[in-house]
Amino acid sequence: MRRIQFKGYGIELPKNTVELKGQVRYRISEGESQISLAVSACEKALKNANITINDIDCIVSASAVGIQPIPCTAALIHEKIAKGTSIPALDINTTCTSFITALDTMSYLIEAGRYERVLIVSCDVASIALNPKQKESFQLFSDGAAAFVIEKTEKEIGVIDAIQKTWSEGAHSTEIRGGLSNFHPKNYSEMTKEEYMFDMNGKTVLSLSISKIPELMKNFLKNNGMKVSDIDMTVPHQASVAMPLVMQKLGIEKDKFLDEVKEFGNMVSASVPITLVHGLENGRIKSGNTILLIGTAAGLTTNMMLIKL
Amino acid sequence: MRRIQFKGYGIELPKNTVELKGQVRYRISEGESQISLAVSACEKALKNANITINDIDCIVSASAVGIQPIPCTAALIHEKIAKGTSIPALDINTTCTSFITALDTMSYLIEAGRYERVLIVSCDVASIALNPKQKESFQLFSDGAAAFVIEKTEKEIGVIDAIQKTWSEGAHSTEIRGGLSNFHPKNYSEMTKEEYMFDMNGKTVLSLSISKIPELMKNFLKNNGMKVSDIDMTVPHQASVAMPLVMQKLGIEKDKFLDEVKEFGNMVSASVPITLVHGLENGRIKSGNTILLIGTAAGLTTNMMLIKL
Repeated sequence: MRRIQFKGYGIELPKNTVELKGQVRYRISEGESQISLAVSACEKALKNANITINDIDCIVSASAVGIQPIPCTAALIHEKIAKGTSIPALDINTTCTSFITALDTMSYLIEAGRYERVLIVSCDVASIALNPKQKESFQLFSDGAAAFVIEKTEKEIGVIDAIQKTWSEGAHSTEIRGGLSNFHPKNYSEMTKEEYMFDMNGKTVLSLSISKIPELMKNFLKNNGMKVSDIDMTVPHQASVAMPLVMQKLGIEKDKFLDEVKEFGNMVSASVPITLVHGLENGRIKSGNTILLIGTAAGLTTNMMLIKL
Repeated sequence: MRRIQFKGYGIELPKNTVELKGQVRYRISEGESQISLAVSACEKALKNANITINDIDCIVSASAVGIQPIPCTAALIHEKIAKGTSIPALDINTTCTSFITALDTMSYLIEAGRYERVLIVSCDVASIALNPKQKESFQLFSDGAAAFVIEKTEKEIGVIDAIQKTWSEGAHSTEIRGGLSNFHPKNYSEMTKEEYMFDMNGKTVLSLSISKIPELMKNFLKNNGMKVSDIDMTVPHQASVAMPLVMQKLGIEKDKFLDEVKEFGNMVSASVPITLVHGLENGRIKSGNTILLIGTAAGLTTNMMLIKL
């Protein structure tokens, strides 16, 4: 057990929503941006934790797509919330499951005493890169941000165990190919513009996930001497409307996982922490619960994390 | 002490060089790319370590600018060197000092037993985004890649201590503003093209570094009961031709740091590990030495790490 606790959290959603096929999607508009959502989520998390930025020992951005190629996203967030301090800032990225990877990774540094209190923020604004021609992804993604303050605790709570796997057979099943070194913006044209947009093959992702994840989860629980029924609530990445099918394959009962795809869509890296906040706020996740954070990400990567609250 | 050892390493440089103001710079040409350099460095590191990819428990890309916005760079490298395996892949990014941050972070996971052997690869191809109008950065940067296999050891060697600080007063002193969410490639034009190129104000970076780093280093060494003279060799980020001036301010003697700016330039994230490899290969760094990895990165971030070899 890596003993950490959630000291506070905050989420920020765009003010505008659109309804697509009866599902609600959040999309940034005038005056909103990835940094504005991120900063607001961080400020709310600090307030919720009843602390100031000076109580934070490290700022981690756990987002899929950055704000700028240079510097890293955490440094740009630092500028808005921590300028004048020397708090270290770094990015950890596994695309959609970045939040779980960052929580997993930083829990070791907290357990070892390197940092006492860490601010992790996940923010993505997929809407700026959606391809109207590709209905599946165009109708699925939302923008959003969530931040958590995590800290060392003496209580017997925290990360029970976590696992990550990457199967790169799926490396090209979810992509934005253009914008960085592989396809620099100087190549942008009417002909190439789709290279700079989301390109997702949901069926391939789903099929690869279903072929790999149930076996992985079985072994993960077995290694921890646990059964599916020991999990009070599962917080899955809100990957798509097919997510409940994956939950079913994992043997997770309908009332034991949080499904908000209809109401919020896939918010890329922000989905897991936003869904977690909703569960904490609406009482479906309670103190003392054992929860499972789980998700698949472009890569194809999957993360699983058991937490005792 | 977080007990790790370097099991192997590999570097890859572009075949073409240019000479600018009497200094050698490496720039990719036809058939070379960020991924080709990264993959070659990884393959050499595995060979040097006398292991195969199946002996690796985690692949970390510690680069500044990614290959694609999605998926993360480590997943794309995974596809070339680890396809068919389930080795986890993730990115850790603090721009130029990403290698130190990744080594620092992963040393905790190795010490705690999560992973036994980790492949860390840093690769950047700054040349594709240099601005010919900005002579300072145009003449400074090179492309390159370096990979290290690090593993758990029972010997009393490894990370003695490490520290990271970010001062976001310098957030805009080194930038590539365009390519991701802040300035999407769809805004690319003859008018805006410089937004997608390196923009560096070396003087501001240098002045901020000199005002902050000597004090930080003094405290860092003091906390470890060490003096500058206890460091056998310093491996600095090859930030610029002004780097020796920073070394002087830190009280590091001329023969106690590796300066390869003239021969190799600033290779962004690859500079620290490439310089480290050179030191290990040419015998300036030896088994039993205490070395200091140190650098500043866009952010402005600085990292310092004391390692006993």
